[in-house]
Amino acid sequence: MEVGAVSKGKETRERIVAEAAALFNQRGFEGGSMSELMKATGLEKGGIYRHFSSKAELAAAAFDYAWQETAETRMHALDQVPNSVDQLIKFVDNFVRRRTAVPGGCPLLNTAIDADDGNLVLRERALKSLRTWRDRLAAIISDGARRKEIKRSVSPTNVANLIISVLEGSLMVSRLERNRDAVLNAQRFLEQYLENEVRIAKKSSSSAR
Amino acid sequence: MEVGAVSKGKETRERIVAEAAALFNQRGFEGGSMSELMKATGLEKGGIYRHFSSKAELAAAAFDYAWQETAETRMHALDQVPNSVDQLIKFVDNFVRRRTAVPGGCPLLNTAIDADDGNLVLRERALKSLRTWRDRLAAIISDGARRKEIKRSVSPTNVANLIISVLEGSLMVSRLERNRDAVLNAQRFLEQYLENEVRIAKKSSSSAR
Repeated sequence: MEVGAVSKGKETRERIVAEAAALFNQRGFEGGSMSELMKATGLEKGGIYRHFSSKAELAAAAFDYAWQETAETRMHALDQVPNSVDQLIKFVDNFVRRRTAVPGGCPLLNTAIDADDGNLVLRERALKSLRTWRDRLAAIISDGARRKEIKRSVSPTNVANLIISVLEGSLMVSRLERNRDAVLNAQRFLEQYLENEVRIAKKSSSSAR
Repeated sequence: MEVGAVSKGKETRERIVAEAAALFNQRGFEGGSMSELMKATGLEKGGIYRHFSSKAELAAAAFDYAWQETAETRMHALDQVPNSVDQLIKFVDNFVRRRTAVPGGCPLLNTAIDADDGNLVLRERALKSLRTWRDRLAAIISDGARRKEIKRSVSPTNVANLIISVLEGSLMVSRLERNRDAVLNAQRFLEQYLENEVRIAKKSSSSAR
Protein backbone atom coordinates (compact mmCIF):
# COMPACT_ATOMS: atom_id res chain seq x y z
CA MET A 1 0.00 0.00 0.00
CA GLU A 2 2.78 2.39 0.84
CA VAL A 3 4.42 1.84 -2.53
CA GLY A 4 1.09 2.58 -4.22
CA ALA A 5 0.74 5.81 -2.27
CA VAL A 6 4.26 6.84 -3.23
CA SER A 7 3.68 6.12 -6.90
CA LYS A 8 0.30 7.93 -6.83
CA GLY A 9 2.05 10.91 -5.23
CA LYS A 10 4.72 10.80 -7.90
CA GLU A 11 2.09 10.61 -10.61
CA THR A 12 0.23 13.60 -9.20
CA ARG A 13 3.47 15.55 -9.00
CA GLU A 14 4.26 14.77 -12.62
CA ARG A 15 0.79 15.82 -13.69
CA ILE A 16 1.15 19.14 -11.85
CA VAL A 17 4.52 19.74 -13.50
CA ALA A 18 3.19 18.99 -16.99
CA GLU A 19 0.18 21.30 -16.53
CA ALA A 20 2.35 24.02 -15.02
CA ALA A 21 4.79 23.73 -17.94
CA ALA A 22 1.95 24.37 -20.41
CA LEU A 23 0.56 27.22 -18.32
CA PHE A 24 3.84 29.07 -17.64
CA ASN A 25 5.13 28.50 -21.19
CA GLN A 26 2.04 30.20 -22.59
CA ARG A 27 1.35 32.86 -19.99
CA GLY A 28 4.73 33.45 -18.37
CA PHE A 29 5.75 33.00 -14.77
CA GLU A 30 3.96 36.17 -13.64
CA GLY A 31 0.98 35.71 -15.95
CA GLY A 32 0.29 32.07 -15.05
CA SER A 33 -1.76 32.04 -11.86
CA MET A 34 -2.17 29.32 -9.25
CA SER A 35 -5.95 29.47 -9.72
CA GLU A 36 -5.54 28.57 -13.41
CA LEU A 37 -3.27 25.71 -12.40
CA MET A 38 -5.84 24.51 -9.85
CA LYS A 39 -8.43 24.49 -12.63
CA ALA A 40 -6.13 22.65 -15.06
CA THR A 41 -5.13 19.97 -12.55
CA GLY A 42 -8.44 19.71 -10.70
CA LEU A 43 -6.48 20.04 -7.44
CA GLU A 44 -6.94 22.37 -4.49
CA LYS A 45 -4.14 24.76 -3.60
CA GLY A 46 -3.11 22.48 -0.74
CA GLY A 47 -2.91 19.54 -3.11
CA ILE A 48 -0.42 21.45 -5.25
CA TYR A 49 1.63 22.88 -2.39
CA ARG A 50 1.98 19.43 -0.85
CA HIS A 51 4.43 18.77 -3.69
CA PHE A 52 6.06 22.21 -4.05
CA SER A 53 7.04 24.67 -1.38
CA SER A 54 6.47 27.73 -3.59
CA LYS A 55 5.31 28.91 -7.00
CA ALA A 56 8.97 29.56 -7.86
CA GLU A 57 9.95 25.96 -7.08
CA LEU A 58 7.08 24.69 -9.21
CA ALA A 59 8.04 27.06 -12.05
CA ALA A 60 11.62 25.75 -11.97
CA ALA A 61 10.42 22.13 -12.22
CA ALA A 62 7.99 23.15 -14.98
CA PHE A 63 10.79 24.83 -16.95
CA ASP A 64 13.02 21.75 -16.62
CA TYR A 65 10.22 19.56 -17.89
CA ALA A 66 9.36 21.88 -20.79
CA TRP A 67 12.98 22.22 -21.81
CA GLN A 68 13.63 18.48 -21.68
CA GLU A 69 10.62 17.82 -23.91
CA THR A 70 11.74 20.56 -26.30
CA ALA A 71 15.38 19.47 -26.44
CA GLU A 72 14.36 15.86 -27.12
CA THR A 73 12.08 16.97 -29.95
CA ARG A 74 14.83 19.06 -31.54
CA MET A 75 17.48 16.36 -31.17
CA HIS A 76 15.12 13.65 -32.46
CA ALA A 77 16.94 10.96 -34.48
CA LEU A 78 20.05 13.13 -34.95
CA ASP A 79 22.27 10.19 -34.00
CA GLN A 80 20.92 8.25 -36.98
CA VAL A 81 22.37 10.83 -39.38
CA PRO A 82 26.00 9.98 -40.22
CA ASN A 83 27.25 13.29 -41.65
CA SER A 84 27.69 16.25 -39.28
CA VAL A 85 26.34 18.89 -41.70
CA ASP A 86 23.31 16.70 -42.38
CA GLN A 87 22.89 16.44 -38.60
CA LEU A 88 22.71 20.23 -38.36
CA ILE A 89 20.26 20.35 -41.28
CA LYS A 90 18.14 17.67 -39.57
CA PHE A 91 18.30 19.63 -36.33
CA VAL A 92 16.98 22.76 -38.10
CA ASP A 93 14.22 20.67 -39.69
CA ASN A 94 13.25 19.24 -36.29
CA PHE A 95 13.10 22.76 -34.86
CA VAL A 96 10.91 24.01 -37.70
CA ARG A 97 8.64 21.01 -38.26
CA ARG A 98 8.28 18.89 -35.12
CA ARG A 99 5.75 19.89 -32.52
CA THR A 100 6.68 19.61 -28.86
CA ALA A 101 4.35 18.31 -26.17
CA VAL A 102 4.38 21.67 -24.37
CA PRO A 103 2.33 24.44 -26.06
CA GLY A 104 3.39 28.09 -26.12
CA GLY A 105 6.55 28.13 -28.20
CA CYS A 106 10.19 27.72 -27.11
CA PRO A 107 10.57 27.54 -23.30
CA LEU A 108 14.10 28.94 -23.54
CA LEU A 109 13.03 32.00 -25.54
CA ASN A 110 9.97 32.55 -23.35
CA THR A 111 11.86 32.17 -20.09
CA ALA A 112 14.86 34.21 -21.27
CA ILE A 113 12.58 37.14 -22.13
CA ASP A 114 10.36 36.63 -19.09
CA ALA A 115 13.23 36.36 -16.60
CA ASP A 116 16.01 38.52 -18.05
CA ASP A 117 15.13 41.35 -15.70
CA GLY A 118 13.33 39.25 -13.12
CA ASN A 119 13.25 35.79 -11.55
CA LEU A 120 16.85 34.68 -10.89
CA VAL A 121 16.23 30.94 -10.53
CA LEU A 122 14.46 30.80 -13.91
CA ARG A 123 17.12 33.02 -15.46
CA GLU A 124 19.88 30.63 -14.36
CA ARG A 125 17.97 27.66 -15.74
CA ALA A 126 17.41 29.36 -19.10
CA LEU A 127 21.11 30.29 -19.26
CA LYS A 128 22.18 26.73 -18.49
CA SER A 129 19.80 25.38 -21.17
CA LEU A 130 21.17 27.80 -23.75
CA ARG A 131 24.75 26.75 -22.99
CA THR A 132 23.98 23.03 -23.05
CA TRP A 133 22.17 23.47 -26.37
CA ARG A 134 24.96 25.54 -27.92
CA ASP A 135 27.63 23.13 -26.64
CA ARG A 136 25.76 20.25 -28.25
CA LEU A 137 25.62 22.00 -31.64
CA ALA A 138 29.23 23.16 -31.33
CA ALA A 139 30.30 19.55 -30.58
CA ILE A 140 28.63 18.38 -33.79
CA ILE A 141 30.55 21.07 -35.69
CA SER A 142 33.89 20.24 -34.02
CA ASP A 143 33.38 16.53 -34.76
CA GLY A 144 32.59 17.43 -38.35
CA ALA A 145 35.79 19.45 -38.68
CA ARG A 146 37.81 16.52 -37.32
CA ARG A 147 36.10 14.20 -39.78
CA LYS A 148 36.81 16.65 -42.65
CA GLU A 149 33.12 17.23 -43.30
CA ILE A 150 33.18 20.82 -42.03
CA LYS A 151 35.58 23.63 -42.89
CA ARG A 152 38.27 24.18 -40.26
CA SER A 153 37.84 27.94 -40.69
CA VAL A 154 34.37 28.09 -39.11
CA SER A 155 34.06 28.73 -35.39
CA PRO A 156 31.84 26.05 -33.78
CA THR A 157 30.53 28.47 -31.15
CA ASN A 158 29.77 31.22 -33.67
CA VAL A 159 27.97 28.88 -36.07
CA ALA A 160 25.99 27.42 -33.16
CA ASN A 161 25.07 30.93 -31.95
CA LEU A 162 24.00 31.88 -35.47
CA ILE A 163 21.77 28.81 -35.85
CA ILE A 164 20.17 29.46 -32.45
CA SER A 165 19.68 33.18 -33.13
CA VAL A 166 18.13 32.71 -36.59
CA LEU A 167 15.76 29.99 -35.36
CA GLU A 168 14.67 31.70 -32.15
CA GLY A 169 14.25 35.10 -33.81
CA SER A 170 12.23 33.64 -36.67
CA LEU A 171 10.09 31.69 -34.19
CA MET A 172 9.21 34.96 -32.47
CA VAL A 173 8.18 36.44 -35.84
CA SER A 174 6.19 33.36 -36.90
CA ARG A 175 4.35 33.10 -33.59
CA LEU A 176 3.48 36.78 -33.69
CA GLU A 177 2.23 36.52 -37.28
CA ARG A 178 0.57 33.15 -36.72
CA ASN A 179 2.02 31.80 -39.94
CA ARG A 180 5.13 29.81 -40.77
CA ASP A 181 6.72 32.13 -43.35
CA ALA A 182 9.53 33.36 -41.11
CA VAL A 183 10.61 29.94 -39.78
CA LEU A 184 10.47 28.36 -43.25
CA ASN A 185 12.50 31.28 -44.61
CA ALA A 186 14.99 30.76 -41.77
CA GLN A 187 15.22 27.07 -42.60
CA ARG A 188 15.92 27.71 -46.31
CA PHE A 189 18.52 30.26 -45.40
CA LEU A 190 20.28 28.02 -42.85
CA GLU A 191 20.34 25.08 -45.27
CA GLN A 192 22.04 27.24 -47.90
CA TYR A 193 24.43 28.64 -45.35
CA LEU A 194 25.38 25.18 -44.06
CA GLU A 195 25.84 23.84 -47.60
CA ASN A 196 27.85 26.79 -48.90
CA GLU A 197 29.77 28.16 -45.94
CA VAL A 198 30.13 25.23 -43.56
CA ARG A 199 30.23 21.97 -45.53
CA ILE A 200 33.42 20.85 -47.28
CA ALA A 201 32.26 20.03 -50.80
CA LYS A 202 32.88 16.42 -51.89
CA LYS A 203 33.47 15.28 -55.49
CA SER A 204 30.70 12.66 -55.30
CA SER A 205 28.36 14.91 -53.30
CA SER A 206 25.28 13.13 -51.93
CA SER A 207 23.52 16.47 -51.55
CA ALA A 208 20.17 16.14 -49.78
CA ARG A 209 18.76 19.24 -51.47
CA MET B 1 -3.81 79.40 -15.93
CA GLU B 2 -5.90 76.84 -17.77
CA VAL B 3 -3.25 76.42 -20.44
CA GLY B 4 -0.69 75.86 -17.70
CA ALA B 5 -2.89 73.19 -16.11
CA VAL B 6 -3.36 71.47 -19.43
CA SER B 7 0.35 71.47 -20.16
CA LYS B 8 1.13 70.27 -16.62
CA GLY B 9 -1.39 67.45 -17.09
CA LYS B 10 0.22 66.55 -20.40
CA GLU B 11 3.65 66.58 -18.81
CA THR B 12 2.49 64.28 -16.01
CA ARG B 13 0.93 61.93 -18.55
CA GLU B 14 4.17 61.78 -20.54
CA ARG B 15 6.15 61.09 -17.37
CA ILE B 16 3.80 58.22 -16.45
CA VAL B 17 4.12 56.75 -19.95
CA ALA B 18 7.94 56.94 -19.91
CA GLU B 19 8.14 55.28 -16.47
CA ALA B 20 5.57 52.64 -17.47
CA ALA B 21 7.54 51.91 -20.65
CA ALA B 22 10.68 51.21 -18.61
CA LEU B 23 8.74 49.13 -16.07
CA PHE B 24 6.76 46.98 -18.53
CA ASN B 25 9.70 46.55 -20.90
CA GLN B 26 11.77 45.09 -18.07
CA ARG B 27 9.15 43.21 -16.08
CA GLY B 28 6.44 42.46 -18.64
CA PHE B 29 2.81 43.53 -18.61
CA GLU B 30 1.85 40.98 -15.94
CA GLY B 31 5.06 41.39 -13.96
CA GLY B 32 5.04 45.19 -13.82
CA SER B 33 2.77 46.24 -10.96
CA MET B 34 0.92 49.49 -10.40
CA SER B 35 2.58 49.83 -6.99
CA GLU B 36 6.00 49.82 -8.67
CA LEU B 37 4.76 52.45 -11.10
CA MET B 38 3.44 54.56 -8.21
CA LYS B 39 6.88 54.37 -6.62
CA ALA B 40 8.66 55.25 -9.89
CA THR B 41 6.41 58.22 -10.65
CA GLY B 42 5.84 59.40 -7.07
CA LEU B 43 2.10 59.48 -7.85
CA GLU B 44 -0.87 57.95 -6.06
CA LYS B 45 -2.98 55.39 -7.89
CA GLY B 46 -5.67 58.05 -8.49
CA GLY B 47 -3.06 60.35 -10.03
CA ILE B 48 -2.17 57.66 -12.56
CA TYR B 49 -5.73 56.57 -13.31
CA ARG B 50 -6.75 60.18 -13.90
CA HIS B 51 -4.83 59.82 -17.19
CA PHE B 52 -5.57 56.19 -18.07
CA SER B 53 -8.77 54.22 -17.66
CA SER B 54 -6.98 50.89 -17.10
CA LYS B 55 -3.60 49.20 -16.78
CA ALA B 56 -4.12 47.81 -20.31
CA GLU B 57 -4.62 51.30 -21.77
CA LEU B 58 -1.49 52.51 -20.00
CA ALA B 59 0.47 49.47 -21.24
CA ALA B 60 -0.58 50.20 -24.82
CA ALA B 61 0.60 53.80 -24.55
CA ALA B 62 3.81 52.59 -22.90
CA PHE B 63 4.47 50.13 -25.71
CA ASP B 64 3.90 52.82 -28.36
CA TYR B 65 6.35 55.11 -26.59
CA ALA B 66 8.97 52.36 -26.14
CA TRP B 67 8.67 51.25 -29.76
CA GLN B 68 8.91 54.78 -31.13
CA GLU B 69 12.09 55.40 -29.12
CA THR B 70 13.52 52.07 -30.28
CA ALA B 71 12.61 52.52 -33.96
CA GLU B 72 14.15 56.02 -33.98
CA THR B 73 17.37 54.69 -32.47
CA ARG B 74 17.61 51.90 -35.04
CA MET B 75 16.80 54.17 -37.99
CA HIS B 76 19.19 56.87 -36.75
CA ALA B 77 20.90 58.74 -39.62
CA LEU B 78 19.97 56.06 -42.18
CA ASP B 79 18.80 58.74 -44.60
CA GLN B 80 22.32 60.20 -44.66
CA VAL B 81 23.68 56.97 -46.16
CA PRO B 82 23.41 57.06 -49.96
CA ASN B 83 23.80 53.35 -50.83
CA SER B 84 20.99 50.93 -49.90
CA VAL B 85 23.28 48.08 -48.78
CA ASP B 86 25.24 50.52 -46.64
CA GLN B 87 21.91 51.66 -45.19
CA LEU B 88 21.16 48.08 -44.13
CA ILE B 89 24.67 47.72 -42.67
CA LYS B 90 24.19 50.99 -40.80
CA PHE B 91 20.81 49.77 -39.56
CA VAL B 92 22.42 46.58 -38.17
CA ASP B 93 25.13 48.68 -36.53
CA ASN B 94 22.51 50.94 -34.94
CA PHE B 95 20.68 47.88 -33.60
CA VAL B 96 23.86 46.40 -32.12
CA ARG B 97 25.60 49.53 -30.85
CA ARG B 98 23.13 52.32 -30.06
CA ARG B 99 21.39 52.30 -26.70
CA THR B 100 17.72 53.21 -26.55
CA ALA B 101 16.19 55.42 -23.87
CA VAL B 102 13.98 52.57 -22.61
CA PRO B 103 15.79 49.85 -20.61
CA GLY B 104 14.92 46.14 -20.83
CA GLY B 105 15.81 45.17 -24.41
CA CYS B 106 13.66 45.25 -27.53
CA PRO B 107 10.01 46.18 -26.81
CA LEU B 108 8.86 44.23 -29.87
CA LEU B 109 10.61 41.02 -28.80
CA ASN B 110 9.50 41.42 -25.19
CA THR B 111 5.89 42.19 -26.06
CA ALA B 112 5.68 39.52 -28.76
CA ILE B 113 6.77 36.86 -26.26
CA ASP B 114 4.76 38.35 -23.42
CA ALA B 115 1.54 38.70 -25.41
CA ASP B 116 1.63 35.86 -27.96
CA ASP B 117 -0.71 33.78 -25.83
CA GLY B 118 -2.21 36.66 -23.85
CA ASN B 119 -3.11 40.34 -24.06
CA LEU B 120 -4.72 41.01 -27.46
CA VAL B 121 -4.25 44.78 -27.58
CA LEU B 122 -0.52 44.46 -26.95
CA ARG B 123 -0.30 41.57 -29.39
CA GLU B 124 -1.86 43.68 -32.15
CA ARG B 125 0.51 46.53 -31.44
CA ALA B 126 3.57 44.25 -31.55
CA LEU B 127 2.36 42.75 -34.84
CA LYS B 128 1.84 46.19 -36.37
CA SER B 129 5.32 47.27 -35.24
CA LEU B 130 6.89 44.16 -36.74
CA ARG B 131 5.18 44.79 -40.07
CA THR B 132 6.06 48.47 -40.19
CA TRP B 133 9.68 47.62 -39.39
CA ARG B 134 9.89 44.87 -41.99
CA ASP B 135 8.19 47.04 -44.64
CA ARG B 136 10.73 49.75 -43.98
CA LEU B 137 13.67 47.36 -44.48
CA ALA B 138 12.00 45.75 -47.51
CA ALA B 139 11.52 49.22 -49.06
CA ILE B 140 15.25 49.93 -48.70
CA ILE B 141 15.96 46.62 -50.48
CA SER B 142 13.43 47.27 -53.27
CA ASP B 143 14.86 50.75 -53.81
CA GLY B 144 18.33 49.25 -53.95
CA ALA B 145 17.25 46.72 -56.58
CA ARG B 146 15.78 49.53 -58.70
CA ARG B 147 19.01 51.50 -58.34
CA LYS B 148 21.04 48.42 -59.32
CA GLU B 149 22.80 48.29 -55.95
CA ILE B 150 21.03 45.09 -54.85
CA LYS B 151 20.58 41.82 -56.72
CA ARG B 152 17.16 41.45 -58.33
CA SER B 153 17.11 37.79 -57.25
CA VAL B 154 16.78 38.53 -53.52
CA SER B 155 13.32 38.76 -51.98
CA PRO B 156 12.97 42.03 -50.03
CA THR B 157 10.58 40.48 -47.50
CA ASN B 158 12.74 37.39 -46.94
CA VAL B 159 15.93 39.40 -46.47
CA ALA B 160 14.11 41.76 -44.09
CA ASN B 161 12.75 38.77 -42.12
CA LEU B 162 16.24 37.28 -41.95
CA ILE B 163 17.80 40.50 -40.65
CA ILE B 164 15.06 40.85 -38.03
CA SER B 165 15.28 37.19 -36.96
CA VAL B 166 19.07 37.15 -36.64
CA LEU B 167 19.14 40.40 -34.67
CA GLU B 168 16.25 39.61 -32.33
CA GLY B 169 17.41 36.04 -31.70
CA SER B 170 20.96 37.14 -30.97
CA LEU B 171 19.67 39.88 -28.68
CA MET B 172 17.84 37.24 -26.65
CA VAL B 173 21.09 35.25 -26.34
CA SER B 174 23.21 38.30 -25.47
CA ARG B 175 20.79 39.55 -22.85
CA LEU B 176 20.60 36.11 -21.26
CA GLU B 177 24.39 35.79 -21.21
CA ARG B 178 24.94 39.42 -20.24
CA ASN B 179 27.67 39.78 -22.83
CA ARG B 180 27.73 41.04 -26.39
CA ASP B 181 29.25 38.00 -28.14
CA ALA B 182 26.03 36.85 -29.84
CA VAL B 183 24.98 40.27 -31.18
CA LEU B 184 28.50 41.07 -32.42
CA ASN B 185 28.64 37.64 -34.08
CA ALA B 186 25.25 38.38 -35.67
CA GLN B 187 26.52 41.73 -36.93
CA ARG B 188 29.64 40.20 -38.54
CA PHE B 189 27.54 37.53 -40.13
CA LEU B 190 24.92 39.96 -41.51
CA GLU B 191 27.61 42.27 -42.90
CA GLN B 192 29.18 39.37 -44.80
CA TYR B 193 25.80 38.19 -45.96
CA LEU B 194 24.81 41.65 -47.22
CA GLU B 195 28.16 42.12 -48.99
CA ASN B 196 28.26 38.68 -50.60
CA GLU B 197 24.64 37.70 -51.23
CA VAL B 198 22.77 40.99 -51.49
CA ARG B 199 25.08 43.70 -52.89
CA ILE B 200 25.84 43.91 -56.59
CA ALA B 201 29.64 44.14 -56.71
CA LYS B 202 30.99 47.30 -58.35
CA LYS B 203 34.35 47.58 -60.13
CA SER B 204 35.47 50.61 -58.09
CA SER B 205 34.02 49.27 -54.82
CA SER B 206 33.97 51.77 -51.96
CA SER B 207 33.72 48.92 -49.47
CA ALA B 208 33.32 50.11 -45.89
CA ARG B 209 34.88 46.98 -44.48
